Amino acid sequence: MMKPKVGFAMAADKTKYVFDAAALERLEQSCAIVRREPLEEFDSPAARALLAEIDILVTGWGCPMVTAPVVASAPRLRLIAHAAGTVKYTLDPAVYAAGIAVTHAADANAVPVAEYTLAAILFSNKRMFELRDRYRADPGRKSSYALTNAPIGNYQRIVGLVGASRIGRKVARLLRPFDFTVLLSDPYVLPGDPVTEDAELVSLDEVMTRADVVSIHAPSLPSTRGMIGARHFGLMQDGACFINTARGAVVDEAAMIAELQTGRIHAVIDVTEPEIPAPGSPLYTLPNVFLTPHVAGAVGTERLRLGQLAIAEIERFVAGRPLEFAVEPELLERLA
Amino acid sequence: MMKPKVGFAMAADKTKYVFDAAALERLEQSCAIVRREPLEEFDSPAARALLAEIDILVTGWGCPMVTAPVVASAPRLRLIAHAAGTVKYTLDPAVYAAGIAVTHAADANAVPVAEYTLAAILFSNKRMFELRDRYRADPGRKSSYALTNAPIGNYQRIVGLVGASRIGRKVARLLRPFDFTVLLSDPYVLPGDPVTEDAELVSLDEVMTRADVVSIHAPSLPSTRGMIGARHFGLMQDGACFINTARGAVVDEAAMIAELQTGRIHAVIDVTEPEIPAPGSPLYTLPNVFLTPHVAGAVGTERLRLGQLAIAEIERFVAGRPLEFAVEPELLERLA
Repeated sequence: MMKPKVGFAMAADKTKYVFDAAALERLEQSCAIVRREPLEEFDSPAARALLAEIDILVTGWGCPMVTAPVVASAPRLRLIAHAAGTVKYTLDPAVYAAGIAVTHAADANAVPVAEYTLAAILFSNKRMFELRDRYRADPGRKSSYALTNAPIGNYQRIVGLVGASRIGRKVARLLRPFDFTVLLSDPYVLPGDPVTEDAELVSLDEVMTRADVVSIHAPSLPSTRGMIGARHFGLMQDGACFINTARGAVVDEAAMIAELQTGRIHAVIDVTEPEIPAPGSPLYTLPNVFLTPHVAGAVGTERLRLGQLAIAEIERFVAGRPLEFAVEPELLERLA
Repeated sequence: MMKPKVGFAMAADKTKYVFDAAALERLEQSCAIVRREPLEEFDSPAARALLAEIDILVTGWGCPMVTAPVVASAPRLRLIAHAAGTVKYTLDPAVYAAGIAVTHAADANAVPVAEYTLAAILFSNKRMFELRDRYRADPGRKSSYALTNAPIGNYQRIVGLVGASRIGRKVARLLRPFDFTVLLSDPYVLPGDPVTEDAELVSLDEVMTRADVVSIHAPSLPSTRGMIGARHFGLMQDGACFINTARGAVVDEAAMIAELQTGRIHAVIDVTEPEIPAPGSPLYTLPNVFLTPHVAGAVGTERLRLGQLAIAEIERFVAGRPLEFAVEPELLERLA
């Protein structure tokens, strides 16, 4: 039997970080790679020629929009395997209308975000960022004594998760080995959902009020815009930590900054709106903020996991088995 | 049946952090607490009177040395439950000679150290400390791009553990859910040891050479003094991370600082020798060092875990069941 033909469409300078030599070799076990160089556009004669030939298109960061004309020029196309987090802004509804199967690597991108969140919880509960800064500013240990006698630490403390997204669920599972009470708020989670084995389902207000550390895992949607506002920050415990690895837009950033400026809470922030705060933003300089440049998701070698997931999906598809991460177009609205 | 009588010996200002009201209430289910205020010395008539009466002595941070005369003045004493990490410098051999059972809470102190180590591994593999500092120094994300394209991250990377101590074993177990290869060096671990399910047993040189992140969990003993020296640091990969939560004495600190000053490796350091570095130490200011003030162990609420472990041991003892963490005096030499 002929192997199905595969092409790539993504930013050329990013491809090698997602598909290394070992990944391409693995892919060639089940497919014939027509061209290793990815398409960065779909309009040239060369691009149209490739599209006419392939059964499977691997997309990724920097992939141009797959429009209705692109679909029309790819009559053999049966699967789009997106080796990145979301297909929401890459695929026209014409893709689904044409019966092309779609899979995405959101699950592989969720892994490093959940790992970052776990590390942020463990470190912020122990106030490590603050203890480090105090130690630097005041060599000796005098300034740390009061803080280490406060009810900090990772024993019998309460972690609050907002959003039972892929990432929220992975965080809840990663928290199993630790001595935490885990709270979760999510309007779509019903009793009996597997996540309720790892977390107690409560209201958003209860998460904000009871948790020693609150971590946001809600998608950025029109309905979640600014969902964490001044009132919510006001509910937080003195000394509690706010972690955002989701999207800046989910939070009323001015309200968050105002609460942080009181010094009453602290924060680990990987996402902001705009995505890079203006040069004068207090987020860069507040001593109680650990700000990272939107790197909780796949960086470095973690990008290879996206490629491996896409290849595993292609292998299933080629073998006639069901996809594990098929995109269901009717659920796209709720996804991040 | 009469409940066994219990007394405390530890620094009075630390007791409430190890035994809160809930802990004392739990202890009173199985024992009669003669006096809630801890002894801070064993020589006064009041101290001698307490010692004469008790069956169980709970010791902890700041407990004076339990000498042969103290043992002689406590004829009913059957158990010393040490609610802290090591009894090595607290109990005279006369304790063991008198047949008094001894238990310690090293296992409860190992938990937060392992948790700190896990967070340090996850964050340092992603270079979060450095990315944070770059973002602060250069608002915008320009300075982070090159680093995030380097082979950083928590996928397909190698963690090297030095020492299969209680803590080293807990770290190996906590690493199970992640996509790491875990190497371990320890001269006392034999093939078939349970830890070999979580880590590949190799030489110290191989750990230093292959690992992307090396974490030290060896005890401080005459034989381990300075065991990680210039040659070992020289073996480390460019960009690798060195984590020390064990004891400063295990490392040749001058050699570590020299290697860090080249910028070739980075480090997360919780312990130094002396325990507080001199005010001018480069450890406070090196940009590639995340230095914390010996707080990986039990701080804040984590100290309550020490008390809960001691009480659980007392409950077993009173019920005639075997202790879970009995101190075997012949093994003391090898313990931290």
